[in-house]
Amino acid sequence: MPSKINTPLILVNFKTYREASGDNAARLARIIEKVRRQTGVCVGLAPQFVDIAPIAQIVSAPIFAQHVDPIDGGSFTGHVLPQSIRAAGAVGTLINHSERRLRLADIDTAIQQSRKVGLTSVVCTNNQAVSAAVAALKPDMIAVEPPELIGTGVPVSQAQPRVVEDTVKAVKQMDPNIIVLCGAGITKADDVAAAMKLGTEGVLVASGVVKAKDPFKVLSRFAERLTTH
Amino acid sequence: MPSKINTPLILVNFKTYREASGDNAARLARIIEKVRRQTGVCVGLAPQFVDIAPIAQIVSAPIFAQHVDPIDGGSFTGHVLPQSIRAAGAVGTLINHSERRLRLADIDTAIQQSRKVGLTSVVCTNNQAVSAAVAALKPDMIAVEPPELIGTGVPVSQAQPRVVEDTVKAVKQMDPNIIVLCGAGITKADDVAAAMKLGTEGVLVASGVVKAKDPFKVLSRFAERLTTH
Amino acid sequence: MPSKINTPLILVNFKTYREASGDNAARLARIIEKVRRQTGVCVGLAPQFVDIAPIAQIVSAPIFAQHVDPIDGGSFTGHVLPQSIRAAGAVGTLINHSERRLRLADIDTAIQQSRKVGLTSVVCTNNQAVSAAVAALKPDMIAVEPPELIGTGVPVSQAQPRVVEDTVKAVKQMDPNIIVLCGAGITKADDVAAAMKLGTEGVLVASGVVKAKDPFKVLSRFAERLTTH
Amino acid sequence: MPSKINTPLILVNFKTYREASGDNAARLARIIEKVRRQTGVCVGLAPQFVDIAPIAQIVSAPIFAQHVDPIDGGSFTGHVLPQSIRAAGAVGTLINHSERRLRLADIDTAIQQSRKVGLTSVVCTNNQAVSAAVAALKPDMIAVEPPELIGTGVPVSQAQPRVVEDTVKAVKQMDPNIIVLCGAGITKADDVAAAMKLGTEGVLVASGVVKAKDPFKVLSRFAERLTTH
Repeated sequence: MPSKINTPLILVNFKTYREASGDNAARLARIIEKVRRQTGVCVGLAPQFVDIAPIAQIVSAPIFAQHVDPIDGGSFTGHVLPQSIRAAGAVGTLINHSERRLRLADIDTAIQQSRKVGLTSVVCTNNQAVSAAVAALKPDMIAVEPPELIGTGVPVSQAQPRVVEDTVKAVKQMDPNIIVLCGAGITKADDVAAAMKLGTEGVLVASGVVKAKDPFKVLSRFAERLTTH
Repeated sequence: MPSKINTPLILVNFKTYREASGDNAARLARIIEKVRRQTGVCVGLAPQFVDIAPIAQIVSAPIFAQHVDPIDGGSFTGHVLPQSIRAAGAVGTLINHSERRLRLADIDTAIQQSRKVGLTSVVCTNNQAVSAAVAALKPDMIAVEPPELIGTGVPVSQAQPRVVEDTVKAVKQMDPNIIVLCGAGITKADDVAAAMKLGTEGVLVASGVVKAKDPFKVLSRFAERLTTH
Repeated sequence: MPSKINTPLILVNFKTYREASGDNAARLARIIEKVRRQTGVCVGLAPQFVDIAPIAQIVSAPIFAQHVDPIDGGSFTGHVLPQSIRAAGAVGTLINHSERRLRLADIDTAIQQSRKVGLTSVVCTNNQAVSAAVAALKPDMIAVEPPELIGTGVPVSQAQPRVVEDTVKAVKQMDPNIIVLCGAGITKADDVAAAMKLGTEGVLVASGVVKAKDPFKVLSRFAERLTTH
Repeated sequence: MPSKINTPLILVNFKTYREASGDNAARLARIIEKVRRQTGVCVGLAPQFVDIAPIAQIVSAPIFAQHVDPIDGGSFTGHVLPQSIRAAGAVGTLINHSERRLRLADIDTAIQQSRKVGLTSVVCTNNQAVSAAVAALKPDMIAVEPPELIGTGVPVSQAQPRVVEDTVKAVKQMDPNIIVLCGAGITKADDVAAAMKLGTEGVLVASGVVKAKDPFKVLSRFAERLTTH
């Protein structure tokens, strides 16, 4: 992994939210940078593809793509080439987010291509069995997110704590080096603490930060609880 | 359409070619800008998503995305939001390229969303019937490209001149304001001239320019023949 | 079109409802056959792929597939070959249902392959513009179904009468031979009558019949109102 | 697994080959039945969806679907419901064939739904890592088929013996109960013997049998070498 990514990690997914597009994306990136510097916690961000290069000019926080295609250059109009993502300034990428699921063989290739160009791979999964399956493909990180909880404000750490615990166990048994993040429904600092207690090494968040009235305050509390759960 | 797009038009699709990624993308963009200024012909370019913003800083040539998703903001991780493409500096977008085909209802929505945010829509099609179908959806431009010819170096204007002629007729009958471009297999200046004689108002090119030993020379000849066919 | 398909037409989509699978599929097919014989109205059915051949043995009502792939034989494991559908006893097929949308070029090919093997094509659409687009591809029928109304019990003929009227106009202007059906949310005989008054020549129904307590009674009323609206 | 499926197993994929559609499907099914009875070897067949029920009436050989969707009934027009496949007479199903790849979460659900209704699941994979990943999802069988060899007549057991050996090892380490089949490029009896020597418990074949001049002779030799390699 690039030296700039550490755990515990807070990774903020900008999705295609208006509140995190264009000028808003730059503004939110600066807030993330500020929290990162003030708390010393590793806070990363996953903006839209077009916003990666401009944001890489203004922050040092680790930038992730939201998706890469399983390709290595060539005739793939409209696709996302891992090395172009890297060249634009990203150091990692989400793969197989529940809003952008991939076919299994493509997840395998996307992880390999990401590694080849130096992108940290964070593969999203929906349950314990799928997490174990992905672990066999040796990504750098796995973010478990029961899709039915995404965007609900009901944290998986509370609704389905066993899913998180069992996922951590299953993944670590396959490969203890793979880092497990917890996603879906995290909106409060307590959710972050709960996720850490269940054995994860960070969280994947989206609307809970992006749509917050005061993202700086929310993120600062998340960062605090990440280290003092 | 944005005032900076005129016909006849040469639109260069960068795909995910290594020769048109990262630093190479910037270099090729500058070549396109030079041809555009020297010949006065409208030459546009469709780089990868991440390269749009940086290129928009260095050239005035019209920039197109290679694809947009049929969305209007929200929870669409890994998708391409039309307004973000516009905000990054693009003035148009390809839709439904043969390497990134869309479902019919999504083409309709992508055209509408593009119009809403001020992006010129260039919808790719594979034959006359499909071109007529797309014309009913009122895009700004239609680029007809029999997929079996893409990347072959065999121009559609030579292999299937009737397809091009019939497409122009079918589209103009549906809506005379829709501009028809000719794609697939164009590598020589004569191909450009032939396409124009068949009634199109420009060409969509890729490897013929991107992989040329001297893209400046090739593009300059294309531009010349575009106006003197 | 096969001589056994007439208008006005009631087409019952079995989807993958439990109430219309396996033995239940055969039972519902017999009910449809009975309504057809008693009322003289053309009532067709679209069961699951595996149920087509067995049902073709027990009823004369026109059978439709729910989907066909745009293929002509070969290496397409898990795909649905139009000629196999025909050989199993179907005389028509739905194409591009909102629950099984196709890419535009594939709709074109699926219509052509269906025609080639003697299957009546019924292409589903979501609005007027898309209906006009499909009309350019010359299917036998178009079934307009705003997807937001499917399964709601709110009929399009009531919620969006203009969509239906404008679709009929747009399609007939493109090709007066194309038959327009009305779908989405039809559960009452009045909905059927309203659809006919708006200029359609039949209805595409699903849960309103399949999940009815007494499908025979519901269908009989539909058939009655279809001819006496 | 249903009692009628044993190892070593020869599974013949009919794809959408003309030679294995409609009447030809029934003829080939009878040949398979004959080989099965004469040799005592378990020979299964995977015909197209519409041919499952008619074939189940004429042979006792185990029938597999070529694909099932990850669903449990409901509004899924054009999809393939596992329980309908079972009700039609199939006892197993291919999942994730290279010509019908699924998203990872859907493979997981398709395996679970298949188990629930009593269908033996045979998940296709493309390499060792993906096979290990699938093994974590606990299917009944895994068929490893490097896609670049499918239909070539070059058997994986010869071109990439290590892929087969390593896959068997990786799968058995995850779960010794999962049966590994070898696919892709098998056209000669020697290929079958080689596959068995590499530790697999059967083969997945297609064109090598379906397109053979004398499928009976070819299959009989396959069956013989399967047990005397």
